[in-house]
Formats: sequence, structure tokens, C-alpha cells
Amino acid sequence: VVAATRDRIVEQSAVLFMRQGYAGTGLKQLAAASEATIGSLYHFFPGGKAELAAETLRVAGQAYEGLVMSIFDAAPDLVTGVEWCFEGAAATLVATDYADACPIATVALDVASSDDALRAVTAEVFAGWLASATAKVVERGLPVERADELATMLIASLEGGFLLSRAAKDPAPMKAIGRSMVALVRAVLDESGVSPGRLTSP
Amino acid sequence: VVAATRDRIVEQSAVLFMRQGYAGTGLKQLAAASEATIGSLYHFFPGGKAELAAETLRVAGQAYEGLVMSIFDAAPDLVTGVEWCFEGAAATLVATDYADACPIATVALDVASSDDALRAVTAEVFAGWLASATAKVVERGLPVERADELATMLIASLEGGFLLSRAAKDPAPMKAIGRSMVALVRAVLDESGVSPGRLTSP
Repeated sequence: VVAATRDRIVEQSAVLFMRQGYAGTGLKQLAAASEATIGSLYHFFPGGKAELAAETLRVAGQAYEGLVMSIFDAAPDLVTGVEWCFEGAAATLVATDYADACPIATVALDVASSDDALRAVTAEVFAGWLASATAKVVERGLPVERADELATMLIASLEGGFLLSRAAKDPAPMKAIGRSMVALVRAVLDESGVSPGRLTSP
Repeated sequence: VVAATRDRIVEQSAVLFMRQGYAGTGLKQLAAASEATIGSLYHFFPGGKAELAAETLRVAGQAYEGLVMSIFDAAPDLVTGVEWCFEGAAATLVATDYADACPIATVALDVASSDDALRAVTAEVFAGWLASATAKVVERGLPVERADELATMLIASLEGGFLLSRAAKDPAPMKAIGRSMVALVRAVLDESGVSPGRLTSP
């Protein structure tokens, strides 16, 4: 029961922080959404909202990384993986009325200039995503430096897509950005002499 | 003096909203930063923080659009314009300790699921940027549909760059994304049979 309560707090907090940001989400609301008391929140997270947010960013960041990586693992090639990734993001936005997007970005922008400890946590999550995405691209045969650059652009353009599609309440930006990302991946693979259908490294 | 006070309120609010988001910025802090009284804020903005934020987003959004468009106007060609745009963004981030970035994004993510009137204002600002950027690309000879897609990716990748570079306190993501965006522009121009150096429409 103890583990269940802690898990529920983190799970519900992830949703609220993602949708409302750090400053816009209060402990009372976090407790109510988790069906926990404020005392229970402090029991599991003695550092209060800041500690809860840090844990939430790490857990939600890892879950999101797992989701995106599983899409790339299921795809027959890199280009298809990118296509599925943006199509999935667009579909999730529509299905959740543009609420469920990146679990890190809203808090990351909120705290970037105002809470250096939490900023460092968001940086750590993004660095983890970048390492995983770079590894996926390297697997497909690109040299590591090009792979790192392409993976950075993949994350950045997905984040930009969440921002523009949430603001417009329209999946069109995310879909258009997906098409651009596919064009870029094709161009980079082509320039590096890697076949778009390549499945394994040499 | 009246106009000066109102301008000062909007100017200082733009800085605070950009750096701290909507929920994280209170009326007291806005008044203090503007060297105005709370009464004065309500005199100019009877709708309080929400009305002030809407005006701030529009004014700061237009100023930022003007800045980016002037970079593209000064550049000898589209590829150079994109290079300068990302180099300028990276330099500004470093010069301001990663505080001065997009004046819309932080508020946009904060309000996307919680304040539909302000969300609509952020959508309007982004739509204005997209129209201007698309026009710039069309001027350089791309058909309007490709231009719209490329302009969407330009804005999205710049936004993603602000997010990743602010989180990491490192200009490297913004610079890497700029290189990817240049590669994409080159690929799209090439595919459309437009010379990268083309300056005017046919």
C-alpha cells in the first residue's frame, strides 16, 4: 500500500506538472489528485514540491523515453520510426484535447531561470533522451557525430511540435514537422551513404 | 508620462513572463519591476494579469517577429539567414545567462490546457510568425506549400533549441539544431530546383 501511494503521487503529479507547469501546480492540488494527504506527500517527499517535481521529472522522463524508443525498435527502419513517432505524438494530442505532450518541457521552461536544482534535473532527462536517440541512430549506421546532431534535432522538433500544436489546438504543425524531419533524415542518410532501409550497423 | 508608464509595464512584464511563465509571475512582482503601483496596473489593464499577459504576448511577439525578419532581410540568401538566426539565438542565450529566449513559449505551455483565452493569444502570435516566415521563404522562390512546411519547422526547431539550450545552460543544442536546419533548407531548395543563393522570386 505504501509503494502504491507513492507511485500514485508521482503518477498524478506527472500529469499535473506536464499540463500546468511547476508554478501553476500547488501541493493541495497534487494531494487531491493523488488521493493523498499533504502529510503523506511530505512523508514520501520531505523536500516538498521541489523534491516531488524532481522525482516526477525523472520517472516521467524515463517512461517517455521508453515509449519513444519502443516505437523506433518496432519500426522497420529509421525513416519509418521518425514517421511513427510524429504520427503518434499528433494522435495523442488530439485524443487528449492537446493536454498530453512532453512531460518535461512545461516545467523545464518554468524553472530554467528560477530554480537551478530543478533545471539541472530537466537537463539530465534531456541528456538521457539524447544519448538513447543517438544510440538508435548510430545503430542504423550513421557516424556518431552526425547521429548526435540528428538526434538533437529530433528531440527539438518534437518539442517544437508539441508547443505549436498545443497552442493552435491543431495536429497540423506536428504532422508538418514530422514530414520535415523525415526529409532531413533522408538527406542526412543519403549524404552519409547509408541506405534508409538499413537495419543494422556494419 | 501615461504612455511611458504603460509601455514600461508591458516591457517589464514581457521579461518576467518570458523568464518565469504565467503562473510563476505575480501582479506584485510585475508592479515592482515596472516601478508602478498595483492600482496603476489595473488602470491600464482592468482585466488584471490575464489582460496584461495578453497585451504583453502580442507586443513581445511582434517585436520578436520584427527582429527575426530583419535578420532574414539582411542575409544575402535563405541559408545564410537561417545560419544567422540560430547563431544570434545562441549568442543571446549565452549573453543573458540563458534567460532571454522565446517571449511566448513559457507562457504558451503554461496556459495551453488551463486558460483558453490566453492560449488563443499564443496561437495568434505563432500564426503571425508562421505567415511572415512563410512569406520570406516564398520570396526566395519556394512554392507556398513547401514554404509553409519549412517555416513551421524553422519556428519549431528554434523553439526546441531554446528549450534544450536553456535546460542545459549550453549553446551547443541551439548550434547543432541550426546546422540541421541549414541542411534541411539546402535539401528542400535542392529538391525544388531552387538555387540556395536565389534572392528574388521569378
